[in-house]
Amino acid sequence: MKILLVGGTGTIGSRITDRLSDDHDLVIAGHSSGDIQTDITDPESIKTLFEEVGAVDAVVVTTGSAPMKPIDQLTNDDFLEGVQSKMMGQINVALTALDYLNDNGSVTLTSGILSHDPIPQGTVLSAINNAVNGFVIGAYGEFLEKGFRINVVSPALVEDSAEALADYFPGHTPATMSDVVDGYVKSLQTKITGQIIDID
Amino acid sequence: MKILLVGGTGTIGSRITDRLSDDHDLVIAGHSSGDIQTDITDPESIKTLFEEVGAVDAVVVTTGSAPMKPIDQLTNDDFLEGVQSKMMGQINVALTALDYLNDNGSVTLTSGILSHDPIPQGTVLSAINNAVNGFVIGAYGEFLEKGFRINVVSPALVEDSAEALADYFPGHTPATMSDVVDGYVKSLQTKITGQIIDID
Ligand SMILES: NC(=O)c1ccc[n+]([C@@H]2O[C@H](COP(=O)([O-])OP(=O)(O)OC[C@H]3O[C@@H](n4cnc5c(N)ncnc54)[C@H](OP(=O)(O)O)[C@@H]3O)[C@@H](O)[C@H]2O)c1
Ligand SMILES: NC(=O)c1ccc[n+]([C@@H]2O[C@H](COP(=O)([O-])OP(=O)(O)OC[C@H]3O[C@@H](n4cnc5c(N)ncnc54)[C@H](OP(=O)(O)O)[C@@H]3O)[C@@H](O)[C@H]2O)c1
Repeated sequence: MKILLVGGTGTIGSRITDRLSDDHDLVIAGHSSGDIQTDITDPESIKTLFEEVGAVDAVVVTTGSAPMKPIDQLTNDDFLEGVQSKMMGQINVALTALDYLNDNGSVTLTSGILSHDPIPQGTVLSAINNAVNGFVIGAYGEFLEKGFRINVVSPALVEDSAEALADYFPGHTPATMSDVVDGYVKSLQTKITGQIIDID
Repeated sequence: MKILLVGGTGTIGSRITDRLSDDHDLVIAGHSSGDIQTDITDPESIKTLFEEVGAVDAVVVTTGSAPMKPIDQLTNDDFLEGVQSKMMGQINVALTALDYLNDNGSVTLTSGILSHDPIPQGTVLSAINNAVNGFVIGAYGEFLEKGFRINVVSPALVEDSAEALADYFPGHTPATMSDVVDGYVKSLQTKITGQIIDID
């Protein structure tokens, strides 16, 4: 398969790259790194990315961020930062992919455990992760009609980030990188669609 | 209780008003109707609303919209319209309420069945409804710390809208207005928090 991996140089993306690179034709997109550069916060930049990459069999997105703050410091702008990056960045990749997917193509997005297992200061991510999950729930029927699939992987705190983020995630058991990569492989290589693939 | 009902003149809000008005001191906010006017798409207008209403025991929000369109017509701007209204409109009311709630105060928001039971053309609402649910999941712990509760009522298509919206919701059984109002009363008058109260 020809697979476009947006965020393929990151903590999670680089492990997916390691697993898939022998058997697939990967195009790794990063912000400043990778085979090709893009900015998912800008819908025009996403269009340019697909114009350059052309038709693909699958798109995997492992990027997007949102601020972490105590609730009484949160502003409208904090939420909009998460909306523009992790929510609309991923959604705009999925919408643009509709014009570039080959038959039986798939899209796999990334949300995260804070959708249902909250932590202090994680309110924006709890909202945004659920928005990404909700997009997949809302969109999969119309993807199916075009012969495409769409899923979202929702990882726990991952092992490679556990040391850096431990203070934010008390009592959270990190997911192994191998289990997390399995989630993306399942979305890519089975025929499931409309699924939130929880890795926790 | 003194209860601020934002959207209290609408299809759902007016039924809540009917149920509660004998026993509570209600302040009904609408866009152009009601005791007081506000625009939830503008954070400054929400601040002004609370400055005028003052301290309250509970805030209920039954307003917010998002466009319905086939997926291949959806743009970034369509999503941002739903973000500004139903998502951030409700979230900004909840954040502003933190400064105006009396002890043991509560906030009750509104999402909807499309969060988990999708329809064609409903993708933006599926994303936005889940974002509102996710906000409540993320926020309830920090609300609790201040002695406040927060829940969201997620109604099915409601009886009073069923005729107008039937074509969009094939096979959906409308919820009775009385069952829907029960959801808000449960959030207001029990001690539950962090709950998605599904009325379907
Ligand atoms: N790490 C965890 O424990 C964890 C757990 C659950 C969910 N998640 C989610 O998984 C996703 C990936 O997380 P991660 O920890 O792997 O992230 P990461 O290590 O920070 O990697 C981010 C990747 O995205 C790229 N990128 C950054 N900004 C971009 C932009 N504006 N446009 C396009 N690409 C951009 C980076 O490229 P450059 O290096 O070139 O900037 C890099 O390839 C995020 O949505 C995160 O919320 C992470
Ligand atoms: N109806 C359903 O079947 C159904 C099902 C599930 C979920 N929901 C959700 O429930 C909520 C209420 O739905 P509804 O059908 O009762 O709505 P509705 O009948 O359209 O009523 C909307 C209410 O919100 C007010 N409003 C409109 N724009 C506003 C703004 N910018 N700022 C502040 N207030 C504004 C209106 O005031 P004015 O009249 O003065 O404009 C009115 O009081 C929505 O979030 C909807 O998505 C509805």
